[in-house]
Amino acid sequence: MAAMMLTPLRWMGDHLSVLDQRALPAERLWIRCDTVADVVAVIANMAVRGAPAIGLAGAYGLAIAALRDEDIAERSDMLCAARPTAVHLAWALNTMRTRCAGKKAAAWVQYAQQLHTEDAELNFSMATHGAELIASGSRVMTHCNTGALATGGWGTALGVIRVAHRAGKISEVLAGETRPWLQGARLTAWELQEEQIPYRLVADGAMAWAMQQLRPAWVIVGADRIAANGDTANKIGTFSLAVLARSLGVKFMVVAPQATIDPTLSTGADIPIEERPGAELTRLAGRAIAPEDAQAWNPVFDVTPATLIDALVTEHGVIHMPDREQLSSLVSRTHGD
Amino acid sequence: MAAMMLTPLRWMGDHLSVLDQRALPAERLWIRCDTVADVVAVIANMAVRGAPAIGLAGAYGLAIAALRDEDIAERSDMLCAARPTAVHLAWALNTMRTRCAGKKAAAWVQYAQQLHTEDAELNFSMATHGAELIASGSRVMTHCNTGALATGGWGTALGVIRVAHRAGKISEVLAGETRPWLQGARLTAWELQEEQIPYRLVADGAMAWAMQQLRPAWVIVGADRIAANGDTANKIGTFSLAVLARSLGVKFMVVAPQATIDPTLSTGADIPIEERPGAELTRLAGRAIAPEDAQAWNPVFDVTPATLIDALVTEHGVIHMPDREQLSSLVSRTHGD
Repeated sequence: MAAMMLTPLRWMGDHLSVLDQRALPAERLWIRCDTVADVVAVIANMAVRGAPAIGLAGAYGLAIAALRDEDIAERSDMLCAARPTAVHLAWALNTMRTRCAGKKAAAWVQYAQQLHTEDAELNFSMATHGAELIASGSRVMTHCNTGALATGGWGTALGVIRVAHRAGKISEVLAGETRPWLQGARLTAWELQEEQIPYRLVADGAMAWAMQQLRPAWVIVGADRIAANGDTANKIGTFSLAVLARSLGVKFMVVAPQATIDPTLSTGADIPIEERPGAELTRLAGRAIAPEDAQAWNPVFDVTPATLIDALVTEHGVIHMPDREQLSSLVSRTHGD
Repeated sequence: MAAMMLTPLRWMGDHLSVLDQRALPAERLWIRCDTVADVVAVIANMAVRGAPAIGLAGAYGLAIAALRDEDIAERSDMLCAARPTAVHLAWALNTMRTRCAGKKAAAWVQYAQQLHTEDAELNFSMATHGAELIASGSRVMTHCNTGALATGGWGTALGVIRVAHRAGKISEVLAGETRPWLQGARLTAWELQEEQIPYRLVADGAMAWAMQQLRPAWVIVGADRIAANGDTANKIGTFSLAVLARSLGVKFMVVAPQATIDPTLSTGADIPIEERPGAELTRLAGRAIAPEDAQAWNPVFDVTPATLIDALVTEHGVIHMPDREQLSSLVSRTHGD
């Protein structure tokens, strides 16, 4: 399974090598991290992105601290502060400290690698469940980047597409460019090209016409947070695809680890939606693409109601037409996993 | 009516001044056209865009030819070849030659100005009919640029918004950025800012979330070609907005001169849809935003079925829920206008 696996993080025996996602797709630049400060830098400057990948970078950062015999608590605080809102980062650092406290440096290195492997395995498990839903010769559509670059390997929604492609099931991927950050154009297209999976990039506004003219079988997306009733927050643009898919007869699949389900949120209305500066829309690559002082509305996520989701795929399997009852049953069944 | 009217073309007594739309919004640059060759250049290099505006530039070009006592037939062919597919350009040149043949130069100048005024009046008429549909305090949504910049003045869909705003009816405009060319960001935002109409720019993929969270009353768009049954071809992204609007309870208005209706096309399936190079998606302002050799699907227009259109506004008034019968009645009623 690990063979040919694209990963944004490589442990090099005594240091970490991090693929600089800011330079993609123009350049494939690996950043060498010898110190905790180096790891803090790649997390803070977003050379590494995607919650699972950020968490794993933090875990490797503590392995470096252990190798250098540094103060783990202090180094852990430094790493955690690099992206204070990244829940997965805090989780990975705490897990490392709980499991490795008092052990030798080699144990810290080994456990960081284990977390990395486990993340890739969890993704592979999701990917395998999701791929089973896809019929041979299918055209599929995806949004944003949910690939190996964002995770320890394989990816979530893009993991499903990758495994389905290896099973010979994918005729073409339609990748939405995903404004304002263009993760689809910059990162998903790059991953698909790397693996020689046939794809075409499509403007976000052209996705309805693409559904009608090119008849994809599935829209496949990731999730940032799932409420107890199945309502799903994901990258802005996902809700649009879900409404269009239902109206135009295309099925809609959400792929996310079970940990994404937050039972404390009753419905999607409880999910806080971050808004970011309008400049992300009005400037691109340093150039103004709108008038000076142009106003813009720039929400980062939107919420797709559970009723528009045909399949929710986690590492535990597929839930068709997810609802409160099914999610509650999944969470209690897998409690303590 | 002409007071404060934004226009991309100004007749300066003995030459034409053309607003360079390629430089917007960064710079407001007027190009001086003293010769027919100057006018050919601004049409060919797209300093002027939008079918009606291109036609009017051609008309002024013939006025310049008449002032310089040049061969009208030869100059007309030169102008027409500048954008061979622009039907409106050929129409404007032919109309000028038919109406002004054998007359003095002053008559050519005067008739070019008359065509300009007539285009603005036609737009103002559409705008007034459309604005009547809008309730006071409405938030509205638009797509692409259908404004004064594309026409002799006022614009089509943006003309409706402009007149409704002057009537105090518009609380805010949500302008879709309109990838790949960003006409919404570059041109519509600029026009709205110029007239101090409150607006926010929104990514195309965020329009569904904007409809649900910000509750616009209307989506208002233009049209490039309307089939006999009311199916409407317009800038890519329009069909998506129409599907979303119907699903999310927002009304959908198309604003276009009656000449846009093509009775020779039975349905939208008969409208040919141009596809343009994928590089328009994969490069921006000279920079790669996707991998080298990235594949892309780049249709320029999409077709919105008549059943998703709540109101079609022409210079002759409003057609609610347009269909084959109503369009046929409009075309025969206004024949010879």
